[in-house]
Amino acid sequence: MTHKIAILGASGYTGAELVRLIATHPSMEIVALSADRKAGLEMAAVFPHLRHLTLPTLCKIEEIDFANVDLCFCALPHATSQRVIKTLPSDVKVVDLSADFRLRDPDEYAKWYGGQHDALEIQKEAVYGLTEFYREEIKTARVVAGTGCNAATGLFALKPLIEADVIDLDQIILDLKCAVSGAGRSLKENLLHAELSEGNHAYAIGGTHRHLGEFDQEFSKVAGREVKVQFTPHLVPANRGILATVYVQGDAEVIHATLAKAYAEEPFIEVLPFGEAPSTRHVRGSNFCHIGVTGDRIDGRAIVIAALDNLTKGSSGQALQNANLMLGEEETAGLMLAPCFP
Amino acid sequence: MTHKIAILGASGYTGAELVRLIATHPSMEIVALSADRKAGLEMAAVFPHLRHLTLPTLCKIEEIDFANVDLCFCALPHATSQRVIKTLPSDVKVVDLSADFRLRDPDEYAKWYGGQHDALEIQKEAVYGLTEFYREEIKTARVVAGTGCNAATGLFALKPLIEADVIDLDQIILDLKCAVSGAGRSLKENLLHAELSEGNHAYAIGGTHRHLGEFDQEFSKVAGREVKVQFTPHLVPANRGILATVYVQGDAEVIHATLAKAYAEEPFIEVLPFGEAPSTRHVRGSNFCHIGVTGDRIDGRAIVIAALDNLTKGSSGQALQNANLMLGEEETAGLMLAPCFP
Amino acid sequence: MTHKIAILGASGYTGAELVRLIATHPSMEIVALSADRKAGLEMAAVFPHLRHLTLPTLCKIEEIDFANVDLCFCALPHATSQRVIKTLPSDVKVVDLSADFRLRDPDEYAKWYGGQHDALEIQKEAVYGLTEFYREEIKTARVVAGTGCNAATGLFALKPLIEADVIDLDQIILDLKCAVSGAGRSLKENLLHAELSEGNHAYAIGGTHRHLGEFDQEFSKVAGREVKVQFTPHLVPANRGILATVYVQGDAEVIHATLAKAYAEEPFIEVLPFGEAPSTRHVRGSNFCHIGVTGDRIDGRAIVIAALDNLTKGSSGQALQNANLMLGEEETAGLMLAPCFP
Amino acid sequence: MTHKIAILGASGYTGAELVRLIATHPSMEIVALSADRKAGLEMAAVFPHLRHLTLPTLCKIEEIDFANVDLCFCALPHATSQRVIKTLPSDVKVVDLSADFRLRDPDEYAKWYGGQHDALEIQKEAVYGLTEFYREEIKTARVVAGTGCNAATGLFALKPLIEADVIDLDQIILDLKCAVSGAGRSLKENLLHAELSEGNHAYAIGGTHRHLGEFDQEFSKVAGREVKVQFTPHLVPANRGILATVYVQGDAEVIHATLAKAYAEEPFIEVLPFGEAPSTRHVRGSNFCHIGVTGDRIDGRAIVIAALDNLTKGSSGQALQNANLMLGEEETAGLMLAPCFP
Repeated sequence: MTHKIAILGASGYTGAELVRLIATHPSMEIVALSADRKAGLEMAAVFPHLRHLTLPTLCKIEEIDFANVDLCFCALPHATSQRVIKTLPSDVKVVDLSADFRLRDPDEYAKWYGGQHDALEIQKEAVYGLTEFYREEIKTARVVAGTGCNAATGLFALKPLIEADVIDLDQIILDLKCAVSGAGRSLKENLLHAELSEGNHAYAIGGTHRHLGEFDQEFSKVAGREVKVQFTPHLVPANRGILATVYVQGDAEVIHATLAKAYAEEPFIEVLPFGEAPSTRHVRGSNFCHIGVTGDRIDGRAIVIAALDNLTKGSSGQALQNANLMLGEEETAGLMLAPCFP
Repeated sequence: MTHKIAILGASGYTGAELVRLIATHPSMEIVALSADRKAGLEMAAVFPHLRHLTLPTLCKIEEIDFANVDLCFCALPHATSQRVIKTLPSDVKVVDLSADFRLRDPDEYAKWYGGQHDALEIQKEAVYGLTEFYREEIKTARVVAGTGCNAATGLFALKPLIEADVIDLDQIILDLKCAVSGAGRSLKENLLHAELSEGNHAYAIGGTHRHLGEFDQEFSKVAGREVKVQFTPHLVPANRGILATVYVQGDAEVIHATLAKAYAEEPFIEVLPFGEAPSTRHVRGSNFCHIGVTGDRIDGRAIVIAALDNLTKGSSGQALQNANLMLGEEETAGLMLAPCFP
Repeated sequence: MTHKIAILGASGYTGAELVRLIATHPSMEIVALSADRKAGLEMAAVFPHLRHLTLPTLCKIEEIDFANVDLCFCALPHATSQRVIKTLPSDVKVVDLSADFRLRDPDEYAKWYGGQHDALEIQKEAVYGLTEFYREEIKTARVVAGTGCNAATGLFALKPLIEADVIDLDQIILDLKCAVSGAGRSLKENLLHAELSEGNHAYAIGGTHRHLGEFDQEFSKVAGREVKVQFTPHLVPANRGILATVYVQGDAEVIHATLAKAYAEEPFIEVLPFGEAPSTRHVRGSNFCHIGVTGDRIDGRAIVIAALDNLTKGSSGQALQNANLMLGEEETAGLMLAPCFP
Repeated sequence: MTHKIAILGASGYTGAELVRLIATHPSMEIVALSADRKAGLEMAAVFPHLRHLTLPTLCKIEEIDFANVDLCFCALPHATSQRVIKTLPSDVKVVDLSADFRLRDPDEYAKWYGGQHDALEIQKEAVYGLTEFYREEIKTARVVAGTGCNAATGLFALKPLIEADVIDLDQIILDLKCAVSGAGRSLKENLLHAELSEGNHAYAIGGTHRHLGEFDQEFSKVAGREVKVQFTPHLVPANRGILATVYVQGDAEVIHATLAKAYAEEPFIEVLPFGEAPSTRHVRGSNFCHIGVTGDRIDGRAIVIAALDNLTKGSSGQALQNANLMLGEEETAGLMLAPCFP
């Protein structure tokens, strides 16, 4: 059986990545692609790398016949996403890639995203899309909220450790190095090649990055108390990949064993042998996440490093993984592409 | 039916690329991987991006039981390749990625590669692996010689034009821009990141690059006379991709029509609408080749530009395409991955 | 004696490059910096790499007291530049970095830049700023028109050859590889890091690039007949540097000797030994231009390759070199910085 | 007065950077350049970007007449450096760029560098070359030991804070992002462009990086007790620049004020306004170090970020700054070049 798929917001990087992945999916067919400002164009005009595919012409959302759609990926900006999803027929399954349905608490949403939520009923029912931790809920969900890409990287490194109570909850530092495609295709001076390449800087320093809302929610939930991490993202001159270097206090070998056990059966999470470290280049273009644990010369300290591709495992690959579950397909369908190195 | 595959020289980039592609191939199983100096290591130690795959341990060639092998990819250095292939059982099909069996004329081989050929009988029977032009011969071949990656790019741009006699054979200039993975994983100062990035230079200038042997052979054959092109490769700071800017004299629209017709049925060659130009970024990691044709303000001049990924369509993807034909499989099996952009 | 300098359009890359160079100039003082949309900001807010310098606050052009200015660099967009320069006091010397005064023939200006010129009198008196060829005129000029950066690269490679009549004037092909800072700091999708890096493409193909106006003018003038070259620029993933690979027909050794002689006394033009090729990485951040000549296996063909930094020798360094001459200073003052490698 | 300068180990990046800087120094003349394996070659053959300079031919160390040398920069590998410096005439001043004379305690040297020191007398007299903190000792020193480039970055961020006792000495984490030229020109697989670009990884994790010896020495000295920091370096795909993100516990505004005061008179250290963050791109090719301080949403936490160019302020620029002091020259001579951006 072939599932009929719509992608809203197909002219951005996560939209294109969904098309790339679905192109070799055995049981999905793309029936609609929306892109408001580029409606009327062929996808090949917007993303020439998809030129070989036969795809629907880009259209406006209101032109889509959702009666003909089984599942809809929303790759729209936050705030827009909630307004659109509210209007979709209730029998269309939705995987949202925006920030709109990630936070359970409307006040937290208002705090981090600066406005009242406009679709509170759906927010209530939406399932947080970190597949490895919400698999059963996702299978029966109507709306799944894709995680932030930085959030996913940090959550994979830390969530089992907090749950197992093997690290000091008050001394957690996440130093992230993010590639630039995570910032999207928007025209900003600091994303120009001449500005970004050959350099390196931190941004959203000091606890201001919105993905902290996800860390707070998920970590506090499993800890049973408030957990606040320090989180500093950096922009590095590469296109894909997030590396999270996480500084924790606890027994490094216990930490390694905890992660190894938590992910033993996971098809996409690879815990490296103790003392080895991952690299973003080794997950590029794939749905895999590599995690390494190392001890420190200071007793009781450990470094956990997680690497994933922000567009794949951090966003569109994760979305497809969730869609597979929602549609009753093999979770890994269309997602076993090996990383593209070099 | 699953074909049993060996890859000799699996520790280089073309070897890794073969593994990456075969990982999602529906009817191939890798039964042996050789890498003389790294024998005994796991592939994941040499190429951590393949960590998720279950693969044979790297071994020496003499440890392989070829009775258990249907087809062997040889990703060995030239000269080594001919010595090894000579020793393989005659019922093992071979796709060679080295330069050893590309040139039909032993004197040409000696001229470009500086030594007598050591496997003249096999050289005689080997088929030149430019699939789109030797498809029928490849289907029944025992040994197929993969083309040079630069050669493939230039041949796709020019061969139909020379065959159709629509350009001046004495005024052909190929200006190529090659990414660095084409130079392999060898330790050379000019391939260091600090040397290569942020710069751009020509090399093998003036008719000294070995792939000219392939151009001479293939172009002269279809022209029925000697054809000598000018060819200047440049190294650009990118990992994958070759862009061939080809300057020809002839009617640009006829040239475009000739190429469009020649490749109309080809699954991997995309001729762009007249006046559009391809980019290497839009074929990255894929087996596609994009070709564009533009006229010039000077009457009777045209520019043909071809773009492909040197590791895929220029090398390992081409090799797999040929192997599919040799094994009676669908030509496109395992090769329809969309390019990875950005 | 210290010359008082104004820079109009200081918030772009060429403006910043002028400030960088003048920072260590022994006899220039920057008294005014304009940037209409960023008026009121400090230069350090727009270009943090200039933070250590004491500089005037960015202002609007009309706020500048030109009575206090000896020489004005105009780094404004074309069309704007002519309107502004028309209004400057006639005793202020001007080095214009836009395209507005490069072409002597108003019809050519209209053809390439799509509009009537608005300052024809000044266009008539302006001197073309290719220092090595117009040195004497520049010394006494009031207005000097900086060349296009691509134009400068091609002119250095070809002008002495055309003048000496040692190449076939009807078979000249310039294949240029340009780094991205030449496109300026403007917000265009194709200049984003995620779009540009790891790729390579041609643009303005087929005789449509505006710098052809400069080639036509300068080459035809020294040839005494119309000369039309083929010119294809490519964008490569680097920040600085232009490499011009020029295909000509003539005796390679004569060509080399002609260039070596023409530039023997030039402080910034280095003709490499015959057969050696330059690289953009070896001129980065400097005012030097390296030129190499190689023969081809086809008799009567040669390849001339020129490399320079588009922001320095191709633009702001050239501008400063001209300003030095106009102000009676040592031509090389402030310009002998060695290239920054790696 | 012109000082006669020798550079030993001139074929590496720090050697070339010394030549680049000295090229515009008002009172230094390079009289000897050694490079054992490349003796006999011109510098332009090894570093074509220095082609415009008139320089001594590369020679072997034993060919240098040190009677004619006032000051010698040693850019040799550690262990080699101590053997060579031991043999130099005692009236030749020495700035060593290796690790050989950085650590005061021979046991610490043995621990981090794995062997007994061979020049203990000189080790005793050598001054640690962090100019801003050892200025007076450097003025009269015969041998100055250049700091590690990572060490310099961390020391600039932290030393005044530890000295002023405004941070918790037991909770200091340095997460460094280093560009690749810091690894030198050596042929290692992980330094190849195809391996390094488009990726990001940590190395020497867990307290194993040798620059920790310098941190331990310098921090413990000013603290008056043992101070151990956590330090994780990462390799980012850029050529120049180190960014140190330092996590400390203390009052962010006090921390900022402490740094601002400590560096108020320093010509090369720029403390940014509170809440601003530096970027490596804004110090590229220069001797400047930018430092920013930000508070965190968690009370009592602060992030200090320091950026410098590893080859300039982190190595050769620092060496020249020290040489200026040793020779009685202006400390900033030859070092006021503005950063090269973009």
